[in-house]
Amino acid sequence: MIKLDDAYDDGNIFAKILRGEMPNITLYEDDKTLAFMDIMPQAVGHCLVIPKQPAVTFLDLPDDASAAVMVTAKKVAAAVVKALDAPGFMLAQLNSSAAGQTVPHYHMHILPRHEGLELKFHAREPEDMAVLNETAEKIRAYL
Amino acid sequence: MIKLDDAYDDGNIFAKILRGEMPNITLYEDDKTLAFMDIMPQAVGHCLVIPKQPAVTFLDLPDDASAAVMVTAKKVAAAVVKALDAPGFMLAQLNSSAAGQTVPHYHMHILPRHEGLELKFHAREPEDMAVLNETAEKIRAYL
Repeated sequence: MIKLDDAYDDGNIFAKILRGEMPNITLYEDDKTLAFMDIMPQAVGHCLVIPKQPAVTFLDLPDDASAAVMVTAKKVAAAVVKALDAPGFMLAQLNSSAAGQTVPHYHMHILPRHEGLELKFHAREPEDMAVLNETAEKIRAYL
Repeated sequence: MIKLDDAYDDGNIFAKILRGEMPNITLYEDDKTLAFMDIMPQAVGHCLVIPKQPAVTFLDLPDDASAAVMVTAKKVAAAVVKALDAPGFMLAQLNSSAAGQTVPHYHMHILPRHEGLELKFHAREPEDMAVLNETAEKIRAYL
């Protein structure tokens, strides 16, 4: 259960990814951010951008880290659109369990959208790693 | 029909709001951004933050304007959460008609969320102005 006033707990999976203790399919990394594939995608090409700065929600995230996430999100979104020939995309960012947040480290979702294609439910179905790697390879070609 | 590569057209409703040619229920304004109530809310307290910089989508928006939107969004989201006693909220930003974008000027949605409460469909039901004004008054008290 994630609440808006929770203190940051560095045992979460994204903190482990940032410390190199858990694997991830990286798309892009710089000194302030990391972008990687969502392993339970709601659409093909669904990926995440996280700040290296610890923060549970948007309300905890310092403005410079927030700005850095958006700079990376724009780079990655442009690559996703080109790689997957997507006519649109959505940014989504969930704060607290009440909003559907499942990992207590701030993350911005990038979701490619195609007209009439419904999104899958959030974080329900893990995708095959080979499929994720293949999609990541396509996106990286534009980064 | 809004496409990712559309040129900016200043006849859109948010451009008119920024020029003072259309009314809006303002929550907050500074030199780079404007925050106001969504008149077809998907939830009580649903509001929008727009840059004064003209941009159709996230891909067109310069990084400084993008950062300014997030600074304002954080201020407004904190106020919305307090004003409506919301346990959570979502940020959402739609790019192109394929993603559900309805106004061709970049806008970040702030959507208060309550556990188990489904969102209404995007931009389908206009809300009563008196109700919107009352909600705005509550939010402004925290800004």
